[in-house]
Amino acid sequence: MTPSGVVTLLTDFGTQDPFVGVMKGVILKRSARLSIVDLSHAIEHQRVGDAAYWLARAYPWFPDGTVHVAVVDPGVGTARRAVVARAGPHWFVAPDNGVLEVVARRTPELEVREIDAERLGLQLPSRTFHGRDLFAPVGALLASGATTFTAVGPRATLVATTNVPEPVVGGRSARGAVVVVDRFGNLLTNLTAGELPPGGPRRVSVLGHDLAVVGTFADVPPGALSALVGSFGELEVFVRNGSAAAVLSAERGTPVGVSW
Amino acid sequence: MTPSGVVTLLTDFGTQDPFVGVMKGVILKRSARLSIVDLSHAIEHQRVGDAAYWLARAYPWFPDGTVHVAVVDPGVGTARRAVVARAGPHWFVAPDNGVLEVVARRTPELEVREIDAERLGLQLPSRTFHGRDLFAPVGALLASGATTFTAVGPRATLVATTNVPEPVVGGRSARGAVVVVDRFGNLLTNLTAGELPPGGPRRVSVLGHDLAVVGTFADVPPGALSALVGSFGELEVFVRNGSAAAVLSAERGTPVGVSW
Amino acid sequence: MTPSGVVTLLTDFGTQDPFVGVMKGVILKRSARLSIVDLSHAIEHQRVGDAAYWLARAYPWFPDGTVHVAVVDPGVGTARRAVVARAGPHWFVAPDNGVLEVVARRTPELEVREIDAERLGLQLPSRTFHGRDLFAPVGALLASGATTFTAVGPRATLVATTNVPEPVVGGRSARGAVVVVDRFGNLLTNLTAGELPPGGPRRVSVLGHDLAVVGTFADVPPGALSALVGSFGELEVFVRNGSAAAVLSAERGTPVGVSW
Repeated sequence: MTPSGVVTLLTDFGTQDPFVGVMKGVILKRSARLSIVDLSHAIEHQRVGDAAYWLARAYPWFPDGTVHVAVVDPGVGTARRAVVARAGPHWFVAPDNGVLEVVARRTPELEVREIDAERLGLQLPSRTFHGRDLFAPVGALLASGATTFTAVGPRATLVATTNVPEPVVGGRSARGAVVVVDRFGNLLTNLTAGELPPGGPRRVSVLGHDLAVVGTFADVPPGALSALVGSFGELEVFVRNGSAAAVLSAERGTPVGVSW
Repeated sequence: MTPSGVVTLLTDFGTQDPFVGVMKGVILKRSARLSIVDLSHAIEHQRVGDAAYWLARAYPWFPDGTVHVAVVDPGVGTARRAVVARAGPHWFVAPDNGVLEVVARRTPELEVREIDAERLGLQLPSRTFHGRDLFAPVGALLASGATTFTAVGPRATLVATTNVPEPVVGGRSARGAVVVVDRFGNLLTNLTAGELPPGGPRRVSVLGHDLAVVGTFADVPPGALSALVGSFGELEVFVRNGSAAAVLSAERGTPVGVSW
Repeated sequence: MTPSGVVTLLTDFGTQDPFVGVMKGVILKRSARLSIVDLSHAIEHQRVGDAAYWLARAYPWFPDGTVHVAVVDPGVGTARRAVVARAGPHWFVAPDNGVLEVVARRTPELEVREIDAERLGLQLPSRTFHGRDLFAPVGALLASGATTFTAVGPRATLVATTNVPEPVVGGRSARGAVVVVDRFGNLLTNLTAGELPPGGPRRVSVLGHDLAVVGTFADVPPGALSALVGSFGELEVFVRNGSAAAVLSAERGTPVGVSW
């Protein structure tokens, strides 16, 4: 696989302090020609499951040969392993703490290597900022072609899990849950195209409300509560020009049922 | 016109969720050598007028041949048209919903084409995320030279408006309004160099206050309310080291009068 | 010194309005091949000392030949000087208002030049946005090799100070202070490796609390208040999975004592 020269970053570091900037410095120090793209740095602090959800949805839109560095890492400096995974033409560099869980579920042929920092010549000056000292350098080594997937370290399997809930599918119905609330207050569920009939379900029920499924936000009047199959293929509950999370007092884990 | 290889993005998507990152992935998938610059992703949700205001002020500072992709798009997935406009050596890719209104007012020779997605070979997998499926790809096609302005689709004219208010100019006075409040609480008005005498007006009145016009923030003591001709040529009301919006309880639409 | 082609930006402009985007436009207009990295744009408004602190910690992680543009500039448009400094293989472009103070303290051989805008052919259309009109263009000139350090203007010395406090070191103890609160509520102090014994101090006292020094966050239970030597070499007080600033009601200037 030829590297695209693109590296994405997904963290819970925020952008107030220059932690992300320093990771980019470390990457460019190894290869000043790489392009670095922020997926998000506003993952809620230590919410590994949210990072896992978004990473799986975002990565396929990038060029083949892209390296995705995901650092939501409550166990930094402990014995938790650091890995590189390969899913089709994409590489992932991350702690083995569940942040790759959703990518792994959707990719039966996922290959994993445990990072051998010593073999790669990496020093770890800090036990608290492996984003800078471990994950960014490995991302740069892969993206610049200075190392290969197999040279990163020995074969491994992912052991950790974040327990992102999975839906239960019946004959003409399915039960899922809200897994992420986006910044508009839309409720993104774990019910995806695979669990839904072509064209989406007929009815959606959430917290006692029975909702129609429409094609886009502007299909309903402002303030109306409704559902649609969103841009990443997941069922999504929304209030037009408002916040479904606020209107319904819904949050991560709120059950969502569909039927057709 | 030769593309500069630079693409700017202006949206109301925020940076909490990876929507903007995914747009960048789509652009780099078409050409990994493009440089992408964020103008802002914090336009207040669906505030097309704010995006129109900032776009017109920001774009001239970019290299000739830059493509500006502006997606504040409450009507996504409806029949609203998607267009490319050309103003001098700059291209704009946006919905026809008024986001190009201020650029158009200042550019009598503006040329517009309606995007023909089919002719460009673009699929629209989603009715809710045309930033990813339509505007970003068209921006990449133009910025990489893979398509030309005239090949985008048929000639068109902009039809929608956001009604950004225009000032009324008299002999030695003018009446305008606050059009944007910036993050410092400065009140940016629609009174620009064109409406003002050389050197700026003598007096500014806003909500019963009579203000002097000075050269820069530090010309007045901390806490003082004053006015200046700002860095984009517009009359601006400010409180040094404070928020004019808070002190005056001013907002978008607050009338501002000047005389000289 | 050969430019790396990388330019970093550190400002208090925020990212809500497109001020930073416009600075990037100005840089790319001079050389579309430069890579621009954000250190932070969320420095608290006019907090020159915070910018000074972070700049000194962040810059060494970038490639040799990088240009760091730091614009926290309450005196914009006044007689305050604009300078370029050289610290080893790095350039800094900034107002002479203390933002380079911490870099200068750590770099006895710092060289400084006062920017002669006229000699560089720069116009200053605005007295309120020198980030766009002065600092960004000078950064681009240096980063692209279009000008050299010595051609920027005459030799100078830094005169302004932000009074970032310095620690007082005794035989087996030292007294310092909190200088920055990061977005997690961790208290970053001015006690660095130079003032501390190898392996860090034994005990840390802050606001009547006596703390152990550990190796990483996960060495203590959730909710525990503790200290560690952080990833930039500074002593840091933290609450695991919480905010030390909130728990202790600590802020910039809070005294921190250590002994060993």
